[in-house]
Amino acid sequence: MTDLSATTGVTDRPSGTAQQTESAAPDPILQFLDRQQPETPCLVMDLAQVRDRYRQLRTALPDARICYAVKANPTPEVVGELVGLGASFDVASPGEIDLCLAKGAAPESISYGNTIKKRRDIARAYEQGVRLFVTDSAADLTNIAEVAPGSQVFCRVLVDNKGSRTPFGRKFGCPPEIAAQLLRRARELDLDAYGVSFHIGSQQLEPVAWEHGISAARQVFENCAAHGVRLRMVNLGGGLPAGYTEAAPPLADYVRRIEESLDRNFGAQRPELLIEPGRFIVGDAGVLRSEVVLVSDSSDGERSWVYLDIGRYNGLAETEGEAITYRLRTSRDGDPLGPVVLAGPTCDGDDVLYQRTRYELPRTLRGGDWVDLLSAGAYTASYSSVGFNGFTPLPTYCVDGDEQP
Amino acid sequence: MTDLSATTGVTDRPSGTAQQTESAAPDPILQFLDRQQPETPCLVMDLAQVRDRYRQLRTALPDARICYAVKANPTPEVVGELVGLGASFDVASPGEIDLCLAKGAAPESISYGNTIKKRRDIARAYEQGVRLFVTDSAADLTNIAEVAPGSQVFCRVLVDNKGSRTPFGRKFGCPPEIAAQLLRRARELDLDAYGVSFHIGSQQLEPVAWEHGISAARQVFENCAAHGVRLRMVNLGGGLPAGYTEAAPPLADYVRRIEESLDRNFGAQRPELLIEPGRFIVGDAGVLRSEVVLVSDSSDGERSWVYLDIGRYNGLAETEGEAITYRLRTSRDGDPLGPVVLAGPTCDGDDVLYQRTRYELPRTLRGGDWVDLLSAGAYTASYSSVGFNGFTPLPTYCVDGDEQP
Repeated sequence: MTDLSATTGVTDRPSGTAQQTESAAPDPILQFLDRQQPETPCLVMDLAQVRDRYRQLRTALPDARICYAVKANPTPEVVGELVGLGASFDVASPGEIDLCLAKGAAPESISYGNTIKKRRDIARAYEQGVRLFVTDSAADLTNIAEVAPGSQVFCRVLVDNKGSRTPFGRKFGCPPEIAAQLLRRARELDLDAYGVSFHIGSQQLEPVAWEHGISAARQVFENCAAHGVRLRMVNLGGGLPAGYTEAAPPLADYVRRIEESLDRNFGAQRPELLIEPGRFIVGDAGVLRSEVVLVSDSSDGERSWVYLDIGRYNGLAETEGEAITYRLRTSRDGDPLGPVVLAGPTCDGDDVLYQRTRYELPRTLRGGDWVDLLSAGAYTASYSSVGFNGFTPLPTYCVDGDEQP
Repeated sequence: MTDLSATTGVTDRPSGTAQQTESAAPDPILQFLDRQQPETPCLVMDLAQVRDRYRQLRTALPDARICYAVKANPTPEVVGELVGLGASFDVASPGEIDLCLAKGAAPESISYGNTIKKRRDIARAYEQGVRLFVTDSAADLTNIAEVAPGSQVFCRVLVDNKGSRTPFGRKFGCPPEIAAQLLRRARELDLDAYGVSFHIGSQQLEPVAWEHGISAARQVFENCAAHGVRLRMVNLGGGLPAGYTEAAPPLADYVRRIEESLDRNFGAQRPELLIEPGRFIVGDAGVLRSEVVLVSDSSDGERSWVYLDIGRYNGLAETEGEAITYRLRTSRDGDPLGPVVLAGPTCDGDDVLYQRTRYELPRTLRGGDWVDLLSAGAYTASYSSVGFNGFTPLPTYCVDGDEQP
């Protein structure tokens, strides 16, 4: 139903200007907003688009096990929808395991994908039936061996994140030679040394980036094989994009590069594949509706300041460093545009969304008007503060575009 | 009871090393933690220290109206304690107004200190009895005049934030000449043009910084007086420090500089004073207890990575850019130290606390040990995400050091 190139291949026009949804069919999210007029700010998710994205990826990588990265959007309805489609789940904490199980996921569909785990949280996951764990350190591996005996483990390697809008730095992963040591040690500890994972950085705009990870995985496979340990799985991580203001390649480009890299590195010995999409599944399926609180002429006489009732602390955490630049839609689209600085509602000087990035909005915009942030379904609501400055967390509503009357 | 110079004048030792509390009396926070062994992470506040700080400031600036900046720590017990002491309140939102009123604050003790307010939120505050509003724009001023008629208004001027660890940028305030225009306009709109506010930046380490604001306020007073509008109040804003790793001057230095500046700018025409301390009141009164999740030898062979169960998304938002560097205390203090990178528990590459700042921790530290972040009572718990990565928000407990057996 959704054409990926249309939703993630975004706009040649000046960055940040409002963009109309070009669709003949009524937009179920707009219909919901028009009918319900919910308090703003709020996030509205279209479950039909979530399903559609999952199926696109299922078709494009038919032999990969798709582990939805729950952290991207832990709305129970979204998780439940993906359980129904047969997805697996990449979880970061006991809280996310509980959520998946509560929505009907089988324990064997869960991958405990956080390298940073308390020993008792590993034990708890094991008791709940989870048998797949990532690791990247000796201390964590020992914990897994002791409290989750016999489990499958994969080791995360550290790879170049060039091309990512939100790179990971050095927090996760280890060099291939250390990964191989850990996996060989895993076998000695009677764990199932299963494979290698990597993450080339979220919102990765260069499909060729996966080569860094796949070739590193091959090195680990070879090193282990030379010591009699046969690894079987490559976890391609996350990184597939959603549609923000900058153009992103279509899914087909990513898949082609991944397949080429797998051929080059593994040839006929193609490993089992696992992939951890989050943003790709839910990003474009959500619209964040906000209200203009105030428009103020700036003291520098150039750009107006537009203050929204949504900001960095109640949902737009990914505007930190202006890393993610959402497309906007307003109730005054069509009116003449002028340059603006966009800011959130708190008494916090860092609660500014876009100051360096050039955004233009209708000059007629004023307090009480609405501004929609498009493709805001990933990494928004769950980042909300519990109440910084007394502003309440961002609520999420779900609609289903396939169930329209 | 607490000597300010002892709690905020911090350490000549290498930054970030653990520091023992030098106190003969039993520490009520440590007693609580020992006795209750609460789940980590958690924040424990000592209400006796909150009271003590309020009284210090009361004594140091006897004619200033002290408006506690609720955003710094909106724990109901803290707000209630300050109501009992006769404090006023600086609030940022309807949520914070409701909180103050629920804890017994009088509406006339509330200052609506956010320049970014929805028109209906101004109306709601007015209905609740609030009669004091900040402004810095024509649109906001018009709203106040229309839905909060006759109220007192003060205008925020934009001032240099040099010396602040968390400067405000250009989000708030306007130049003195615009402020004067707005206040003259306020009178035309039958509002009470009350005075001028400024904020020299939070955790301001240079007492001389207040001169920027006080001289700007004088300019506005003079401009308005020349047009027959007599302003009466100067709001000194926030900025008084808490005790992190770097040395901060004692309160007496700040008060001396402020008094000198008031004398220089206003002489015998001393205005009414208002001050909005947040961090200064609650910062040093809180200890954040965390657990070491994992210690991992780094792949660069130099520093270990210590992963805590607290990070940027469940309380330590102010470690963004390593702006605020908390003092640490661990269960292994006294053991030999080694350099570390400190990181939080989420699968997020930005959830790293200190990488550029040099911290040393006991080399014996391992998973299950505790690490206390000292002076963590301000800007922590309420910043917590609702559940990013499935981690729960930071709970706050209150003890009262004056009620020990």
